[in-house]
Amino acid sequence: MSNTIITVGREFGSGGHEIAADLARKLDIPLYDKEILTEAARNSGFSEDAFMAFDETRESSLLYALATGNSLYGPELPLPVVLCLEQFRAIGELAEKGSCVFVGRCADYVLREREDVLSVFVHAPLEARVKRICDLRGISRQEAEKLIIRSDRKRANYYQHYTDWTWGAASTYHLSIDSSLTGIDGGVVMIETMLRLNGLL
Amino acid sequence: MSNTIITVGREFGSGGHEIAADLARKLDIPLYDKEILTEAARNSGFSEDAFMAFDETRESSLLYALATGNSLYGPELPLPVVLCLEQFRAIGELAEKGSCVFVGRCADYVLREREDVLSVFVHAPLEARVKRICDLRGISRQEAEKLIIRSDRKRANYYQHYTDWTWGAASTYHLSIDSSLTGIDGGVVMIETMLRLNGLL
Repeated sequence: MSNTIITVGREFGSGGHEIAADLARKLDIPLYDKEILTEAARNSGFSEDAFMAFDETRESSLLYALATGNSLYGPELPLPVVLCLEQFRAIGELAEKGSCVFVGRCADYVLREREDVLSVFVHAPLEARVKRICDLRGISRQEAEKLIIRSDRKRANYYQHYTDWTWGAASTYHLSIDSSLTGIDGGVVMIETMLRLNGLL
Repeated sequence: MSNTIITVGREFGSGGHEIAADLARKLDIPLYDKEILTEAARNSGFSEDAFMAFDETRESSLLYALATGNSLYGPELPLPVVLCLEQFRAIGELAEKGSCVFVGRCADYVLREREDVLSVFVHAPLEARVKRICDLRGISRQEAEKLIIRSDRKRANYYQHYTDWTWGAASTYHLSIDSSLTGIDGGVVMIETMLRLNGLL
Protein backbone atom coordinates (compact mmCIF):
# COMPACT_ATOMS: atom_id res chain seq x y z
CA MET A 1 0.00 0.00 0.00
CA SER A 2 1.30 3.46 -0.86
CA ASN A 3 1.44 6.23 1.73
CA THR A 4 -2.03 7.37 2.77
CA ILE A 5 -2.64 10.49 4.80
CA ILE A 6 -6.13 11.55 5.76
CA THR A 7 -6.90 14.94 7.30
CA VAL A 8 -10.23 15.34 9.06
CA GLY A 9 -11.66 18.78 9.79
CA ARG A 10 -14.83 18.66 11.85
CA GLU A 11 -17.62 20.74 13.27
CA PHE A 12 -17.79 20.39 17.05
CA GLY A 13 -20.07 17.51 18.02
CA SER A 14 -20.22 16.04 14.52
CA GLY A 15 -18.35 12.87 15.49
CA GLY A 16 -15.46 13.73 13.17
CA HIS A 17 -12.93 12.61 15.76
CA GLU A 18 -14.67 9.24 16.17
CA ILE A 19 -14.81 8.71 12.41
CA ALA A 20 -11.10 9.57 12.18
CA ALA A 21 -10.24 7.27 15.10
CA ASP A 22 -12.24 4.34 13.70
CA LEU A 23 -10.66 4.81 10.29
CA ALA A 24 -7.13 4.91 11.78
CA ARG A 25 -7.87 1.74 13.77
CA LYS A 26 -9.27 0.00 10.70
CA LEU A 27 -6.29 0.98 8.52
CA ASP A 28 -3.91 0.29 11.43
CA ILE A 29 -2.21 3.67 11.12
CA PRO A 30 -1.55 6.35 13.76
CA LEU A 31 -4.16 8.97 14.70
CA TYR A 32 -2.92 12.46 15.53
CA ASP A 33 -5.35 14.76 17.29
CA LYS A 34 -4.10 16.31 20.54
CA GLU A 35 -0.98 14.24 19.88
CA ILE A 36 0.03 16.94 17.39
CA LEU A 37 0.50 19.28 20.36
CA THR A 38 2.67 16.76 22.21
CA GLU A 39 4.83 16.33 19.13
CA ALA A 40 5.07 20.07 18.58
CA ALA A 41 6.01 20.61 22.23
CA ARG A 42 8.65 17.87 22.13
CA ASN A 43 10.46 19.50 19.24
CA SER A 44 10.00 23.17 20.05
CA GLY A 45 11.20 23.65 23.58
CA PHE A 46 7.81 25.17 24.53
CA SER A 47 5.72 23.35 27.14
CA GLU A 48 2.75 21.18 26.20
CA ASP A 49 0.66 23.42 28.48
CA ALA A 50 1.41 26.39 26.26
CA PHE A 51 0.22 24.44 23.20
CA MET A 52 -2.90 23.31 25.07
CA ALA A 53 -3.74 26.90 26.06
CA PHE A 54 -3.65 28.01 22.44
CA ASP A 55 -5.11 24.84 20.90
CA GLU A 56 -7.10 25.83 17.79
CA THR A 57 -7.66 29.30 19.13
CA ARG A 58 -6.20 32.58 17.96
CA GLU A 59 -5.46 33.83 21.43
CA SER A 60 -5.64 32.95 25.08
CA SER A 61 -6.45 35.62 27.63
CA LEU A 62 -4.25 33.75 30.07
CA LEU A 63 -1.06 33.71 28.08
CA TYR A 64 -1.50 36.17 25.28
CA ALA A 65 -0.32 39.15 27.30
CA LEU A 66 2.65 37.27 28.71
CA ALA A 67 5.17 36.93 26.03
CA THR A 68 6.50 37.31 22.58
CA GLY A 69 8.25 34.28 21.17
CA ASN A 70 11.88 33.61 21.55
CA SER A 71 12.74 30.88 19.13
CA LEU A 72 13.91 29.90 15.69
CA TYR A 73 11.30 32.27 14.27
CA GLY A 74 12.86 35.35 15.86
CA PRO A 75 11.98 37.40 18.91
CA GLU A 76 9.36 39.55 17.22
CA LEU A 77 6.57 37.03 16.68
CA PRO A 78 3.82 36.76 19.29
CA LEU A 79 3.67 33.45 21.15
CA PRO A 80 0.41 32.20 19.48
CA VAL A 81 1.98 32.59 16.05
CA VAL A 82 5.14 30.76 17.10
CA LEU A 83 3.13 27.90 18.62
CA CYS A 84 1.05 27.65 15.45
CA LEU A 85 4.18 27.52 13.27
CA GLU A 86 5.61 24.81 15.55
CA GLN A 87 2.41 22.80 15.11
CA PHE A 88 2.59 23.22 11.33
CA ARG A 89 6.19 21.97 11.48
CA ALA A 90 5.17 18.97 13.63
CA ILE A 91 2.35 18.09 11.18
CA GLY A 92 4.79 18.17 8.26
CA GLU A 93 7.26 15.96 10.12
CA LEU A 94 4.63 13.43 11.23
CA ALA A 95 3.34 13.19 7.62
CA GLU A 96 6.88 12.38 6.48
CA LYS A 97 6.92 9.32 8.76
CA GLY A 98 4.19 7.50 6.81
CA SER A 99 0.45 6.83 6.61
CA CYS A 100 -1.65 8.48 9.33
CA VAL A 101 -4.83 10.38 10.15
CA PHE A 102 -4.76 14.01 11.36
CA VAL A 103 -7.68 15.65 13.14
CA GLY A 104 -8.07 19.42 12.85
CA ARG A 105 -5.32 22.01 13.36
CA CYS A 106 -5.17 23.07 9.70
CA ALA A 107 -3.44 19.82 8.68
CA ASP A 108 -5.33 19.91 5.36
CA TYR A 109 -3.80 23.31 4.63
CA VAL A 110 -0.31 22.40 5.84
CA LEU A 111 -0.24 19.27 3.64
CA ARG A 112 -2.10 20.74 0.64
CA GLU A 113 0.77 20.17 -1.80
CA ARG A 114 1.14 16.43 -1.06
CA GLU A 115 -0.40 14.00 -3.55
CA ASP A 116 -0.96 11.28 -0.94
CA VAL A 117 -3.43 13.30 1.14
CA LEU A 118 -7.20 13.01 1.23
CA SER A 119 -8.79 15.91 3.09
CA VAL A 120 -12.19 15.38 4.66
CA PHE A 121 -14.64 17.69 6.44
CA VAL A 122 -17.28 16.21 8.76
CA HIS A 123 -20.32 18.29 9.66
CA ALA A 124 -23.89 17.85 10.88
CA PRO A 125 -26.92 20.08 11.50
CA LEU A 126 -26.78 21.93 14.82
CA GLU A 127 -29.76 20.01 16.18
CA ALA A 128 -28.07 16.63 15.64
CA ARG A 129 -24.87 17.87 17.27
CA VAL A 130 -26.70 19.30 20.27
CA LYS A 131 -28.37 15.93 20.83
CA ARG A 132 -25.05 14.09 20.52
CA ILE A 133 -23.21 16.40 22.94
CA CYS A 134 -26.08 16.29 25.49
CA ASP A 135 -25.98 12.47 25.41
CA LEU A 136 -22.17 12.26 25.58
CA ARG A 137 -21.56 14.89 28.27
CA GLY A 138 -24.80 14.85 30.23
CA ILE A 139 -25.23 18.61 29.89
CA SER A 140 -28.31 20.69 29.07
CA ARG A 141 -29.41 21.57 25.55
CA GLN A 142 -28.57 25.19 26.23
CA GLU A 143 -25.07 24.40 27.48
CA ALA A 144 -24.43 22.07 24.55
CA GLU A 145 -25.54 24.67 22.02
CA LYS A 146 -23.36 27.34 23.62
CA LEU A 147 -20.35 25.00 23.66
CA ILE A 148 -20.85 24.03 20.00
CA ILE A 149 -21.22 27.58 18.74
CA ARG A 150 -18.23 28.83 20.77
CA SER A 151 -16.02 25.91 19.71
CA ASP A 152 -16.87 26.23 16.02
CA ARG A 153 -16.27 29.97 16.12
CA LYS A 154 -12.81 29.37 17.68
CA ARG A 155 -11.92 26.75 15.08
CA ALA A 156 -13.10 28.92 12.19
CA ASN A 157 -11.19 31.95 13.48
CA TYR A 158 -8.01 29.93 14.03
CA TYR A 159 -8.24 28.41 10.55
CA GLN A 160 -8.94 31.70 8.83
CA HIS A 161 -6.23 33.52 10.76
CA TYR A 162 -3.43 31.09 9.94
CA THR A 163 -4.41 30.01 6.42
CA ASP A 164 -5.84 31.88 3.44
CA TRP A 165 -8.73 29.41 3.22
CA THR A 166 -12.22 29.41 4.73
CA TRP A 167 -13.02 26.73 7.30
CA GLY A 168 -15.89 24.58 6.04
CA ALA A 169 -15.81 25.78 2.40
CA ALA A 170 -16.57 22.62 0.39
CA SER A 171 -14.13 23.48 -2.38
CA THR A 172 -11.06 23.23 -0.10
CA TYR A 173 -11.79 19.61 0.90
CA HIS A 174 -11.77 16.51 -1.27
CA LEU A 175 -14.79 15.13 0.57
CA SER A 176 -17.36 16.63 2.96
CA ILE A 177 -20.03 14.55 4.65
CA ASP A 178 -23.03 15.13 6.88
CA SER A 179 -22.49 12.64 9.71
CA SER A 180 -26.13 12.85 10.80
CA LEU A 181 -26.83 10.91 7.60
CA THR A 182 -23.82 8.59 7.51
CA GLY A 183 -23.36 7.85 11.21
CA ILE A 184 -19.85 7.00 12.44
CA ASP A 185 -19.55 3.69 10.55
CA GLY A 186 -20.99 5.17 7.37
CA GLY A 187 -18.55 8.07 7.60
CA VAL A 188 -15.69 5.56 7.60
CA VAL A 189 -17.27 3.81 4.58
CA MET A 190 -17.48 7.09 2.63
CA ILE A 191 -13.82 7.92 3.29
CA GLU A 192 -12.69 4.38 2.40
CA THR A 193 -14.70 4.54 -0.85
CA MET A 194 -13.00 7.83 -1.78
CA LEU A 195 -9.56 6.41 -0.89
CA ARG A 196 -10.22 3.36 -3.07
CA LEU A 197 -11.28 5.54 -6.02
CA ASN A 198 -7.91 7.29 -5.77
CA GLY A 199 -5.72 4.24 -5.35
CA LEU A 200 -4.91 5.37 -1.82
CA LEU A 201 -6.31 2.16 -0.33
CA MET B 1 -37.69 1.54 -3.72
CA SER B 2 -38.84 4.58 -1.77
CA ASN B 3 -38.81 8.05 -3.32
CA THR B 4 -35.29 9.31 -3.96
CA ILE B 5 -34.50 12.89 -4.90
CA ILE B 6 -30.95 14.02 -5.50
CA THR B 7 -30.01 17.68 -5.88
CA VAL B 8 -26.64 18.46 -7.44
CA GLY B 9 -25.04 21.88 -7.02
CA ARG B 10 -21.86 22.27 -9.04
CA GLU B 11 -18.97 24.56 -9.75
CA PHE B 12 -18.77 25.44 -13.45
CA GLY B 13 -16.65 22.90 -15.33
CA SER B 14 -16.59 20.39 -12.46
CA GLY B 15 -18.60 17.78 -14.37
CA GLY B 16 -21.45 18.00 -11.88
CA HIS B 17 -24.03 17.90 -14.67
CA GLU B 18 -22.44 14.76 -16.17
CA ILE B 19 -22.37 13.04 -12.77
CA ALA B 20 -26.04 13.97 -12.23
CA ALA B 21 -26.98 12.78 -15.75
CA ASP B 22 -25.14 9.44 -15.38
CA LEU B 23 -26.74 8.89 -11.99
CA ALA B 24 -30.23 9.63 -13.34
CA ARG B 25 -29.63 7.22 -16.24
CA LYS B 26 -28.35 4.52 -13.90
CA LEU B 27 -31.28 4.89 -11.50
CA ASP B 28 -33.66 5.30 -14.45
CA ILE B 29 -35.22 8.47 -13.06
CA PRO B 30 -35.71 11.90 -14.70
CA LEU B 31 -32.99 14.55 -14.76
CA TYR B 32 -34.02 18.17 -14.42
CA ASP B 33 -31.46 20.80 -15.36
CA LYS B 34 -32.62 23.37 -17.94
CA GLU B 35 -35.84 21.33 -17.96
CA ILE B 36 -36.72 23.15 -14.71
CA LEU B 37 -37.06 26.33 -16.78
CA THR B 38 -39.34 24.67 -19.32
CA GLU B 39 -41.53 23.36 -16.52
CA ALA B 40 -41.60 26.75 -14.80
CA ALA B 41 -42.47 28.47 -18.07
CA ARG B 42 -45.23 25.99 -18.83
CA ASN B 43 -47.00 26.66 -15.56
CA SER B 44 -46.34 30.36 -15.14
CA GLY B 45 -47.47 32.01 -18.35
CA PHE B 46 -44.03 33.62 -18.77
CA SER B 47 -42.00 32.64 -21.83
CA GLU B 48 -39.15 30.13 -21.67
CA ASP B 49 -36.95 32.88 -23.12
CA ALA B 50 -37.54 35.01 -20.05
CA PHE B 51 -36.50 32.11 -17.80
CA MET B 52 -33.41 31.50 -19.96
CA ALA B 53 -32.39 35.16 -19.76
CA PHE B 54 -32.45 35.06 -15.98
CA ASP B 55 -31.17 31.50 -15.53
CA GLU B 56 -29.16 31.34 -12.30
CA THR B 57 -28.41 35.01 -12.45
CA ARG B 58 -29.72 37.82 -10.29
CA GLU B 59 -30.33 40.16 -13.15
CA SER B 60 -30.17 40.48 -16.90
CA SER B 61 -29.20 43.77 -18.48
CA LEU B 62 -31.51 42.89 -21.34
CA LEU B 63 -34.68 42.38 -19.42
CA TYR B 64 -34.14 43.80 -15.98
CA ALA B 65 -35.13 47.31 -16.91
CA LEU B 66 -38.18 46.15 -18.83
CA ALA B 67 -40.75 45.10 -16.39
CA THR B 68 -42.10 44.34 -13.00
CA GLY B 69 -43.99 41.10 -12.68
CA ASN B 70 -47.69 40.77 -13.11
CA SER B 71 -48.70 37.46 -11.69
CA LEU B 72 -49.89 35.48 -8.70
CA TYR B 73 -47.20 37.16 -6.63
CA GLY B 74 -48.59 40.64 -7.12
CA PRO B 75 -47.64 43.52 -9.39
CA GLU B 76 -44.90 44.90 -7.13
CA LEU B 77 -42.23 42.21 -7.50
CA PRO B 78 -39.50 42.68 -10.09
CA LEU B 79 -39.49 40.15 -12.92
CA PRO B 80 -36.33 38.27 -11.80
CA VAL B 81 -37.90 37.59 -8.40
CA VAL B 82 -41.13 36.37 -9.96
CA LEU B 83 -39.25 34.07 -12.34
CA CYS B 84 -37.23 32.70 -9.43
CA LEU B 85 -40.37 32.04 -7.40
CA GLU B 86 -41.92 30.29 -10.41
CA GLN B 87 -38.84 28.08 -10.65
CA PHE B 88 -39.03 27.26 -6.93
CA ARG B 89 -42.67 26.31 -7.45
CA ALA B 90 -41.79 24.12 -10.46
CA ILE B 91 -39.06 22.36 -8.44
CA GLY B 92 -41.49 21.61 -5.62
CA GLU B 93 -44.06 20.25 -8.08
CA LEU B 94 -41.56 18.08 -9.96
CA ALA B 95 -40.32 16.63 -6.65
CA GLU B 96 -43.90 15.66 -5.79
CA LYS B 97 -44.06 13.51 -8.93
CA GLY B 98 -41.43 11.02 -7.70
CA SER B 99 -37.74 10.14 -7.76
CA CYS B 100 -35.54 12.48 -9.82
CA VAL B 101 -32.27 14.39 -10.01
CA PHE B 102 -32.14 18.21 -9.99
CA VAL B 103 -29.13 20.19 -11.17
CA GLY B 104 -28.56 23.66 -9.69
CA ARG B 105 -31.17 26.40 -9.34
CA CYS B 106 -31.31 26.24 -5.51
CA ALA B 107 -33.21 22.91 -5.58
CA ASP B 108 -31.32 21.84 -2.42
CA TYR B 109 -32.69 24.90 -0.64
CA VAL B 110 -36.22 24.60 -2.05
CA LEU B 111 -36.46 20.93 -0.97
CA ARG B 112 -34.56 21.27 2.33
CA GLU B 113 -37.45 20.07 4.50
CA ARG B 114 -38.01 16.81 2.60
CA GLU B 115 -36.62 13.62 4.15
CA ASP B 116 -36.18 11.87 0.80
CA VAL B 117 -33.60 14.32 -0.53
CA LEU B 118 -29.84 13.90 -0.74
CA SER B 119 -28.10 17.17 -1.59
CA VAL B 120 -24.72 17.00 -3.27
CA PHE B 121 -22.13 19.62 -4.26
CA VAL B 122 -19.56 18.85 -6.95
CA HIS B 123 -16.42 20.96 -7.16
CA ALA B 124 -12.87 20.76 -8.47
CA PRO B 125 -9.72 22.91 -8.37
CA LEU B 126 -9.74 25.75 -10.91
CA GLU B 127 -6.85 24.21 -12.83
CA ALA B 128 -8.71 20.92 -13.41
CA ARG B 129 -11.84 22.77 -14.53
CA VAL B 130 -9.92 25.01 -16.92
CA LYS B 131 -8.42 21.91 -18.55
CA ARG B 132 -11.82 20.24 -18.82
CA ILE B 133 -13.53 23.28 -20.36
CA CYS B 134 -10.66 23.85 -22.83
CA ASP B 135 -10.96 20.22 -23.98
CA LEU B 136 -14.76 20.27 -24.18
CA ARG B 137 -15.21 23.63 -25.88
CA GLY B 138 -11.97 24.06 -27.77
CA ILE B 139 -11.36 27.50 -26.27
CA SER B 140 -8.18 29.05 -24.84
CA ARG B 141 -7.06 28.71 -21.23
CA GLN B 142 -7.71 32.39 -20.68
CA GLU B 143 -11.24 32.23 -22.11
CA ALA B 144 -12.01 29.11 -20.07
CA GLU B 145 -10.78 30.69 -16.85
CA LYS B 146 -12.82 33.84 -17.47
CA LEU B 147 -15.94 31.80 -18.24
CA ILE B 148 -15.52 29.68 -15.11
CA ILE B 149 -14.99 32.61 -12.78
CA ARG B 150 -17.88 34.58 -14.27
CA SER B 151 -20.25 31.60 -14.18
CA ASP B 152 -19.41 30.68 -10.59
CA ARG B 153 -19.82 34.27 -9.47
CA LYS B 154 -23.28 34.37 -11.12
CA ARG B 155 -24.33 31.11 -9.48
CA ALA B 156 -23.07 32.17 -6.06
CA ASN B 157 -24.82 35.55 -6.29
CA TYR B 158 -28.08 33.98 -7.44
CA TYR B 159 -27.96 31.41 -4.64
CA GLN B 160 -27.11 33.92 -1.96
CA HIS B 161 -29.70 36.40 -3.17
CA TYR B 162 -32.64 33.98 -3.17
CA THR B 163 -31.75 31.77 -0.18
CA ASP B 164 -30.25 32.52 3.24
CA TRP B 165 -27.49 29.98 2.63
CA THR B 166 -24.00 30.28 1.17
CA TRP B 167 -23.30 28.55 -2.15
CA GLY B 168 -20.55 25.95 -1.66
CA ALA B 169 -20.60 25.94 2.18
CA ALA B 170 -20.01 22.28 3.05
CA SER B 171 -22.43 22.32 5.97
CA THR B 172 -25.49 22.95 3.76
CA TYR B 173 -24.94 19.82 1.62
CA HIS B 174 -25.12 16.18 2.69
CA LEU B 175 -22.16 15.31 0.48
CA SER B 176 -19.51 17.39 -1.30
CA ILE B 177 -16.93 15.83 -3.61
CA ASP B 178 -13.90 16.95 -5.55
CA SER B 179 -14.54 15.52 -9.03
CA SER B 180 -10.88 15.89 -10.02
CA LEU B 181 -10.29 12.99 -7.61
CA THR B 182 -13.42 10.92 -8.24
CA GLY B 183 -13.89 11.43 -11.98
CA ILE B 184 -17.43 11.20 -13.39
CA ASP B 185 -17.90 7.47 -12.66
CA GLY B 186 -16.41 7.79 -9.17
CA GLY B 187 -18.70 10.71 -8.44
CA VAL B 188 -21.68 8.49 -9.22
CA VAL B 189 -20.21 5.78 -6.94
CA MET B 190 -19.86 8.25 -4.05
CA ILE B 191 -23.48 9.42 -4.38
CA GLU B 192 -24.76 5.84 -4.67
CA THR B 193 -22.79 4.87 -1.54
CA MET B 194 -24.33 7.75 0.40
CA LEU B 195 -27.83 6.87 -0.88
CA ARG B 196 -27.34 3.25 0.20
CA LEU B 197 -26.20 4.32 3.69
CA ASN B 198 -29.47 6.20 4.04
CA GLY B 199 -31.80 3.56 2.68
CA LEU B 200 -32.54 5.81 -0.29
CA LEU B 201 -31.29 3.16 -2.74
